[in-house]
Amino acid sequence: MVNYPDGRKSHFQTETVSAAHRGMELEADINSTNRWYLDQDIAVIYKKPTPVQIVKVDYPARSAAKISEAYFKVPSTTDYNGIYKGKYLDFEAKECALKTSFPIKSIHPHQIRHLDNVTRHGAIAFVIVRFTHLGETYYVIASEMTEYIRTCGRSSIPYKWFQEHGYMIPYNYVKPVDYLQIVDRLYFKEKK
Amino acid sequence: MVNYPDGRKSHFQTETVSAAHRGMELEADINSTNRWYLDQDIAVIYKKPTPVQIVKVDYPARSAAKISEAYFKVPSTTDYNGIYKGKYLDFEAKECALKTSFPIKSIHPHQIRHLDNVTRHGAIAFVIVRFTHLGETYYVIASEMTEYIRTCGRSSIPYKWFQEHGYMIPYNYVKPVDYLQIVDRLYFKEKK
Repeated sequence: MVNYPDGRKSHFQTETVSAAHRGMELEADINSTNRWYLDQDIAVIYKKPTPVQIVKVDYPARSAAKISEAYFKVPSTTDYNGIYKGKYLDFEAKECALKTSFPIKSIHPHQIRHLDNVTRHGAIAFVIVRFTHLGETYYVIASEMTEYIRTCGRSSIPYKWFQEHGYMIPYNYVKPVDYLQIVDRLYFKEKK
Repeated sequence: MVNYPDGRKSHFQTETVSAAHRGMELEADINSTNRWYLDQDIAVIYKKPTPVQIVKVDYPARSAAKISEAYFKVPSTTDYNGIYKGKYLDFEAKECALKTSFPIKSIHPHQIRHLDNVTRHGAIAFVIVRFTHLGETYYVIASEMTEYIRTCGRSSIPYKWFQEHGYMIPYNYVKPVDYLQIVDRLYFKEKK
């Protein structure tokens, strides 16, 4: 096993995330969190459908229309948006398989522009990044991340940056990615 | 040609809408209006992608992934949402080919529930209905329409109801469905 110079994260180095949980795990966790928010009437937040360019649709005898040719499109916006306490919420979520940095190319330039647009119009906008190997999920204020991306001159954001600028989202069985807890701390704290 | 009892709308009775403009015309008009709002930095409002259940994806040699089997899904939310003057906006848009009423089944029960949900959380929620034969496009406050649907005991909403409860959306070449003009009147009027 590799020993990292600072040794700090050595207890995370074994891969505890099972193969079954890779890839779509964060999306599934956010969807079930959103369902919980909806069921509890706390917020109305949905994942947008995957954008698809439909080319050909067949109509087999009397049954449902079948799409027989379609292609994935580059999304023009983020994946999630909705309303919470009267405010417009907008975010993107990304898993990161690397341990030491987050590749900037994981976020489309369209999505960065979109996050800046909604921020300017008063949205609560953020990015959720999960470092899968570390089992850590961070909430990052969108404007801080897009500012960093614009000015860093790098192709990736170091893990350390997330530790310093992000807010760790706690895990909870019924709401696996309880990001509204962070939203409350940042935007709705009554008093300190 | 049929003569309606009140005669009032007789000048609309000839079908002025060309075949090319049927069906998707309202969607195209709203999309170009939204693009205009975005370009002018007035609001950030998008149509959500059509929800599709992807069953089979092929990967032809080195080219883009091709979806070869997929089906249309019933949407759980409305088609459009976004942010305007810091407020969360949410709406559904429907064309109506009938002249005297709007069939309630054109709006999915999911969408009605969704409009009620976002309204309760403080959204500006509405429905845009275009009577294609009349060339009239109405803005209806979501809660008024869902209340009517719940209590009317009918399968359709009479055209007259839209005249009485809706707000006619003016046509403009650069913003064919300038619904924010109505939003301004209803929610952002400075003084009368």
